[in-house]
Amino acid sequence: MLRLLKNFLHLFTGKPEYIHKPGDYKTIDLIFNRRTCRSFTDEEISPDELYTILEAGRFAPSTVNLQTWSFITFTKEEWQNRFERPIPFKGSNAIVVCADTYRLKDVLVEFKETPVINFSFAIFNAGLAAMNMTIAAEALGIKSIMLSETGKTGLLDYAWLKDTLNLPDGVLPLTTLVLGKEGTRMPGIPPRQPRAAVVMRTTYDHRAGTQLQDWFEQMFIGFKMTHPMSSFAKQIDMYKTKMTDAEKAIAQQFSRKGKQ
Amino acid sequence: MLRLLKNFLHLFTGKPEYIHKPGDYKTIDLIFNRRTCRSFTDEEISPDELYTILEAGRFAPSTVNLQTWSFITFTKEEWQNRFERPIPFKGSNAIVVCADTYRLKDVLVEFKETPVINFSFAIFNAGLAAMNMTIAAEALGIKSIMLSETGKTGLLDYAWLKDTLNLPDGVLPLTTLVLGKEGTRMPGIPPRQPRAAVVMRTTYDHRAGTQLQDWFEQMFIGFKMTHPMSSFAKQIDMYKTKMTDAEKAIAQQFSRKGKQ
Repeated sequence: MLRLLKNFLHLFTGKPEYIHKPGDYKTIDLIFNRRTCRSFTDEEISPDELYTILEAGRFAPSTVNLQTWSFITFTKEEWQNRFERPIPFKGSNAIVVCADTYRLKDVLVEFKETPVINFSFAIFNAGLAAMNMTIAAEALGIKSIMLSETGKTGLLDYAWLKDTLNLPDGVLPLTTLVLGKEGTRMPGIPPRQPRAAVVMRTTYDHRAGTQLQDWFEQMFIGFKMTHPMSSFAKQIDMYKTKMTDAEKAIAQQFSRKGKQ
Repeated sequence: MLRLLKNFLHLFTGKPEYIHKPGDYKTIDLIFNRRTCRSFTDEEISPDELYTILEAGRFAPSTVNLQTWSFITFTKEEWQNRFERPIPFKGSNAIVVCADTYRLKDVLVEFKETPVINFSFAIFNAGLAAMNMTIAAEALGIKSIMLSETGKTGLLDYAWLKDTLNLPDGVLPLTTLVLGKEGTRMPGIPPRQPRAAVVMRTTYDHRAGTQLQDWFEQMFIGFKMTHPMSSFAKQIDMYKTKMTDAEKAIAQQFSRKGKQ
């Protein structure tokens, strides 16, 4: 019971520790104050702002500067027309962030036989771009959430999204970045794993996973706070089903593309 | 010849277009002025600074807040001892950024049968963390480069790194983030693909790849400028060999871990 209480309190106290010394405080504060937003106002973001955010994605770094990403954008109306429902959480705009190994196929024929490597780099690069866009949005006062399944918006809905967005083989829709002005801010910080489990010195620490029990309990408590109508256990169950389906659809890709 | 000249000039003029209106200019400028650094001074970054940068990685967002990353850190001396050579480009510190599906194996037994999904999310999340660390570093006046192979530092050296860093199955070393104070700044901007090839509205554009010929030529010219002793064609050849080897080693992982 004491442990439960401690893990509950951790949701409010588990803040990042960072140094307020030389450098650009404003950006540092922005990085550490960023929170996923689950409640947007009706206010729309301007086309200029969306343009700048996309430009931040386009100018992210990438492996050998290959820019293995594509960004499929939607206004409220465009999303409604394509998906027959509003943007999740009623955001103002949405960007489906894809890892893209398709677009380069004509200029980089050399890379055809290594689908796992290509997908790995493409996915990593798309992560870099998604974070750059998220931070650019924060800097413009725009909040965001990255969705992996809510409303069929990410990798777990691969087969459905491939069909709906006309994606060729080699393009993986990883997440939908929903953007808008912030409504209500959720209390607390999604609990982070202990630093010692994540940051290692000079070699991998095989015992890192043994330090996660408290964190995992915090996840259950924290999830209930942000999703009062659901539970983390239910969410994991739902994920498990969708993951099994998505796994089959994506694995097909790999075997179609190259010989392993 | 005119086209070659045009593509050469593009390296100096292909700047991001972003809007200088409301919001936090300082962060926006920082995002768009960020450049990969290939020349560091001897100055070391402080432990406090490194701590803050790692904290930015730890507090990045991730799929279901699962934090599927690990960061293996090195000082100059630690790197020298482990790798028997200096940190590439003589950086002050290095962080091997890994996608980690191993650490959670005991708390999330449900996810064991979907290796492709797990790796995809883990790699995407590691990309988010790597970008957050890079931007935090920039804000502290620290420059960086993310390496995928130079000096055996990334995914293309998977088998070697797995052995050297004692990585368990399920951990992919994606990149080494080298950090330090900036020496000489390279001229030009690595050429970005045309916006129309990358940013799409409401559906995937299958003709996006047909717009890349100029960009590809710019890559050859730009590569020569940053690597005067090499060429992009040589680099691709070298990549191809390493990719084929890494592909085999990684694909083993996938088949060991789950049934597809």
